[in-house]
Amino acid sequence: MNLITPAKRIQAAALVRSGRSVSLCREFPKNAAPNNPNPAQHFMRMLERGSSGGGAIDYYGISYHGQASTHLDSLCHVWNEDGMWNGRSPAAEIGFDGTRWGAITNWSTGIITRGVLLDVPRFRGEPFVTQERPIHGWELEDIARSQGVTIEAGDALVVYGGRDAWDRVNPIWGSGPSRPGLHASCLPFIRDNDASLLVWDMMDHAPNGYDLPWSVHGVIFACGVGLVDNALLEPLAVAYAEEGRYEFMLMVLPLVVVGGTGSPLNPIALF
Amino acid sequence: MNLITPAKRIQAAALVRSGRSVSLCREFPKNAAPNNPNPAQHFMRMLERGSSGGGAIDYYGISYHGQASTHLDSLCHVWNEDGMWNGRSPAAEIGFDGTRWGAITNWSTGIITRGVLLDVPRFRGEPFVTQERPIHGWELEDIARSQGVTIEAGDALVVYGGRDAWDRVNPIWGSGPSRPGLHASCLPFIRDNDASLLVWDMMDHAPNGYDLPWSVHGVIFACGVGLVDNALLEPLAVAYAEEGRYEFMLMVLPLVVVGGTGSPLNPIALF
Amino acid sequence: MNLITPAKRIQAAALVRSGRSVSLCREFPKNAAPNNPNPAQHFMRMLERGSSGGGAIDYYGISYHGQASTHLDSLCHVWNEDGMWNGRSPAAEIGFDGTRWGAITNWSTGIITRGVLLDVPRFRGEPFVTQERPIHGWELEDIARSQGVTIEAGDALVVYGGRDAWDRVNPIWGSGPSRPGLHASCLPFIRDNDASLLVWDMMDHAPNGYDLPWSVHGVIFACGVGLVDNALLEPLAVAYAEEGRYEFMLMVLPLVVVGGTGSPLNPIALF
Amino acid sequence: MNLITPAKRIQAAALVRSGRSVSLCREFPKNAAPNNPNPAQHFMRMLERGSSGGGAIDYYGISYHGQASTHLDSLCHVWNEDGMWNGRSPAAEIGFDGTRWGAITNWSTGIITRGVLLDVPRFRGEPFVTQERPIHGWELEDIARSQGVTIEAGDALVVYGGRDAWDRVNPIWGSGPSRPGLHASCLPFIRDNDASLLVWDMMDHAPNGYDLPWSVHGVIFACGVGLVDNALLEPLAVAYAEEGRYEFMLMVLPLVVVGGTGSPLNPIALF
Repeated sequence: MNLITPAKRIQAAALVRSGRSVSLCREFPKNAAPNNPNPAQHFMRMLERGSSGGGAIDYYGISYHGQASTHLDSLCHVWNEDGMWNGRSPAAEIGFDGTRWGAITNWSTGIITRGVLLDVPRFRGEPFVTQERPIHGWELEDIARSQGVTIEAGDALVVYGGRDAWDRVNPIWGSGPSRPGLHASCLPFIRDNDASLLVWDMMDHAPNGYDLPWSVHGVIFACGVGLVDNALLEPLAVAYAEEGRYEFMLMVLPLVVVGGTGSPLNPIALF
Repeated sequence: MNLITPAKRIQAAALVRSGRSVSLCREFPKNAAPNNPNPAQHFMRMLERGSSGGGAIDYYGISYHGQASTHLDSLCHVWNEDGMWNGRSPAAEIGFDGTRWGAITNWSTGIITRGVLLDVPRFRGEPFVTQERPIHGWELEDIARSQGVTIEAGDALVVYGGRDAWDRVNPIWGSGPSRPGLHASCLPFIRDNDASLLVWDMMDHAPNGYDLPWSVHGVIFACGVGLVDNALLEPLAVAYAEEGRYEFMLMVLPLVVVGGTGSPLNPIALF
Repeated sequence: MNLITPAKRIQAAALVRSGRSVSLCREFPKNAAPNNPNPAQHFMRMLERGSSGGGAIDYYGISYHGQASTHLDSLCHVWNEDGMWNGRSPAAEIGFDGTRWGAITNWSTGIITRGVLLDVPRFRGEPFVTQERPIHGWELEDIARSQGVTIEAGDALVVYGGRDAWDRVNPIWGSGPSRPGLHASCLPFIRDNDASLLVWDMMDHAPNGYDLPWSVHGVIFACGVGLVDNALLEPLAVAYAEEGRYEFMLMVLPLVVVGGTGSPLNPIALF
Repeated sequence: MNLITPAKRIQAAALVRSGRSVSLCREFPKNAAPNNPNPAQHFMRMLERGSSGGGAIDYYGISYHGQASTHLDSLCHVWNEDGMWNGRSPAAEIGFDGTRWGAITNWSTGIITRGVLLDVPRFRGEPFVTQERPIHGWELEDIARSQGVTIEAGDALVVYGGRDAWDRVNPIWGSGPSRPGLHASCLPFIRDNDASLLVWDMMDHAPNGYDLPWSVHGVIFACGVGLVDNALLEPLAVAYAEEGRYEFMLMVLPLVVVGGTGSPLNPIALF
C-alpha cells in the first residue's frame, strides 16, 4: 500500500478525461438473503423542530464483512498459521475494543490510485465465471495482455467476474460453501505486479483445493494488499467499454474507525 | 447539486498537483460525550478458519446525524413549514423503512467537485469563531476576496471555523444549546454563489436569533444544497497553508443506503 | 387482561405444590435460520478493573417479533380494517418513538395467572400438528374436556402443538408462508372462555383460508388478549405429564419499555 | 443459588396473600443521562398486512450492565485476582461469542424465592442513604432485627437505599465515581446469611475504601450469589408498608441467552 505515493495519486488524477463517475458499491444490504445471514439495519426517526419544522434521521448498523456488503478489508482482517502481515500475532493484537495493529485507520487519507479493470467474462466470451473454471493468475496475465494494459506498481487491480450476470441465472453468489472466483494462483500474480489493492466481485474460488484457511484473501497477510470485497462491477464494465479505456482514477475512502478491521464504503471510478 | 457536471469533475481532477491527500473525517464517535449522547457502536468477533487460520470481523452501528460524526445530509433530512426541497411533504415521503424522496442514493456516484476553503480564524486573526461573533454571509464574501479566490458554480464551500481549537479551551463544541457557527445570512451567500455543497466544522450558529427551525441548514430545503456536517478541518487548514492553495479536488462518497437520509463518510481533499 | 385480579394471582400461587419450575423460553435466537431472517445480536466486551480485577459485559439486540423469539405481544401489535383494540387508529397512535396506546408498559406489573395446558399431540395421538389439520376451536374444547380441565376467566391458555417434534422431521417451523397451527375458529373459543392470555408454540395456521390479515392473532384487537408467541412447550408437556396436572402458576414478566409493542421474556410455569 | 430448592419455591408461593404485584424494574433506559452513557435503542417499524390490516414491531438493543437498567448479573460477570467463582479463569472462559462458564442460562428456570426487604431509609429516619454514611453489614443485621424478620437460607435480600429520593435532590445516582451504597462489610453479611440473591437500588458504595476492584459486587465470585442491579424499590417500599409485611414471593426470570453475562428483566414481588 505504500506504493501509493503522492506521485501515484497525481498519475491517477491525470487519468480523468470524460468526468464520468461510476459507483462500485452495492446497496447497503438490508434484506436477509442466502448470502446475507445478518442483514444490515436501517431504522428511522422523525424529529419536530420549532413549531413547524422537522427532520428525519436514521441509524445504520452493519456487520459488513461477508458476501453482501461492498467493503474494504484492513490488514488485520485475516491470518494463517504464521500470523498476520509481518508476522503479527492475532491473539496479541486483537481485543474486544478493536485491533491494536493493522486497523483501517492506517488508510484514513484514502486509497486513491490508478485502477485497472481486468474483464474476465469478455475475455472468455461468457457472461460470468463458472464454478468449474476459476480465474487463474496466468489468465489475468493473458487478459491484461489482450486488453493492452500494463499493470504498474501501486495500481488497484479490479477483477470483474460477472457476478451480477451469475446472480440472474444461479442461486445468488455466495449462498453456499462452493462459489466461483479467483484461484489461489492469483496471489503470486498480485504480488509480482506490486498491486496495492484488489477490487473484486467474485472473490476467492471455493473450495480452494489446497485446504488453505484463505487463498486469494491471503494477499492481505502475505503481501500487505488491501481488498475491496463484493464490489459492483457490472456498471464499470459497461462504462469502460463505452469510454474505451480500462484505466481510471479510483477512490476508496474508508471510515475512520479506531481499531476497525475494515469499512463499508462506496468506491468510485472516475474516467 | 446538478451543477456538478462531468466537466466540473474534470476541473476538480485538474486541480491535483502535489498529490497530497487530506482526510476531513473525525474519528467514528464511539465514546459518549456531551455532544455525543448516542455513541456509535463497535463490536468485535474473531473467527477460526481451518486448523490454523482465522479472521477478525466487526459490527459498526451509528446514528450519524448530530454533532459528533462526519456525515453527509441528503435532501430529505430537514424541512420547515413549507416542506422539503421542492415543496415535498415529509409526512408523505418519510416512512419507517426510509424516505421515498431525497434519499442519499441520489448521490451514489459520489460528489466530486472543486473544493474551496474559507478560513475564518485566519481572516479574523483569532484561533476560532466565538459564540458572540457568528460568521456572516458578507464575511465569507470578504474572506473569499481576501484569499483571492473566486467561487464558481458547483463548488463545494468548505468553511473552517476552528472547531478543534475551540474544543481545546471550551466545553466540547455542540455540548449545549448555544454554539458558535454560521449566521443565517450565510444562506443567501451559498445560494447566490451556486454552491453545490457546504462542508463545515461548526455548523449553524445557535440560537439562530430568528426562531427559525433551521437557519443555515435551511440550504438543504431552500437551495437543494448538501451538507457535510462535523468535518475535520484543522488538518486541511494546515495543508492548504503549506500547499499555498485554497482549492483542491474534493471527494464525498456516500454509502448506497436505499431510503437513507445521509451517510457517514470520509471526505478527502486532494491537492 | 383485567380479568387478572389480585384474587386470580392468589389462585395461581395456590396451585404451587411441587415447586417444579419450567421455562417456556426458547434460546435468544442469535443464528440466522429460515424462520429467523434477522438474528438477534450478542456482542461481548471485557473490562479491566483495578490492577487485577475485571468484568465481562455484553450487548443484546433483537427484533423479537416473528417466528424465532419467545415474546409477549402487547395490544398495539396488530390491527385490521377496524383498527386496533377498542377501535384505536394505528396511524394516530404509532410513531417513530413507539406507540402512544397499547404499549407493553400496560402490563408492567407482570401477567401472573393460572396457566392451563391443552396438549393437542397427545389428544390426537400424533407427535405434532400437521399442515393438513389445523387446530380448531371445537377441538380445544374437546381437549379440555378430555383432560378434565375447566377453563376459568382470566386463565392463560397454553396450546401445545408439538413444534419441536415438528422441527425434528420437517423444515424448521415458520420457514415458509405455509405453517401448521391454530385455525381461526380458535378465536371465538378464546373469547368465550374469557382467557386473558394465549401461550402457543405453533401460532396461526397459515394460510388462514379467509384472506384475513390476522386470524388467531386477531384476539389481540378483537378481545384484548395478549399473546406469548414462540413459547417452548415440549418441556412443559413432559413436566405436566410427570406432575399429573395440567394447571400451574404462570409468570409472564415483560420489560418496561415505554412505547414498546411487546417484549422478549422467559415465561415460567411453576407447578 | 442452589439453595433455591423446589421446597424454597413452595415456601415463596405460600407467602402470597393479597395478590398485589409490584414491579421492581426501571424503565428501559432509552435516554442518555450522566449515569447512562450508552442509551438503550428502541426503533419502530410498521408493516402492512393484507389489504387493510397491519402490525407494529420494534427493535430493542441494550448494553444492560452499568447504572441505568434493571438487570441480573450472572456468575461470570466479575472477577478479582483469584479469578471468577470457583477460581475459573476469565481468559479461558470468556470469548467473543460469550462466556463458556457462568452464563445466565444456568438460571433459565428462573429465580423464584422468598424476598426480604431491608429498608435502610426507614431505619435511619432519612429519605435516602448518603455518600458519607454507607450501609454496613452490621446495620443490615440491625435492620432485620428491628423489622422482626428472620433471614433464611436461599432468600433474596432486597436492600432499599432510597435511590429515587436521592435522585430528586441530587445529581442522578451513578453519575460520577463517588456514589452512596453498600459498604464492603455487607459481603460477609450476605455470605453468612446464605442469601441466594441480592436485589438493590444503590449498589456498591464508591470509592470502596480498600482499593478493591469490586467490593459488594464481589459476592458474585466470593459466594456465587447473583445480583439484581438498579432495582426500582420505592414502589416496593410503599407496598410493603401498606401490606404490613417485609416478605413476598420474588420472581426474577432472565432471558435465555447462551453465553450471556446477565439479562435485563422485570423482577416482580408478589404479596
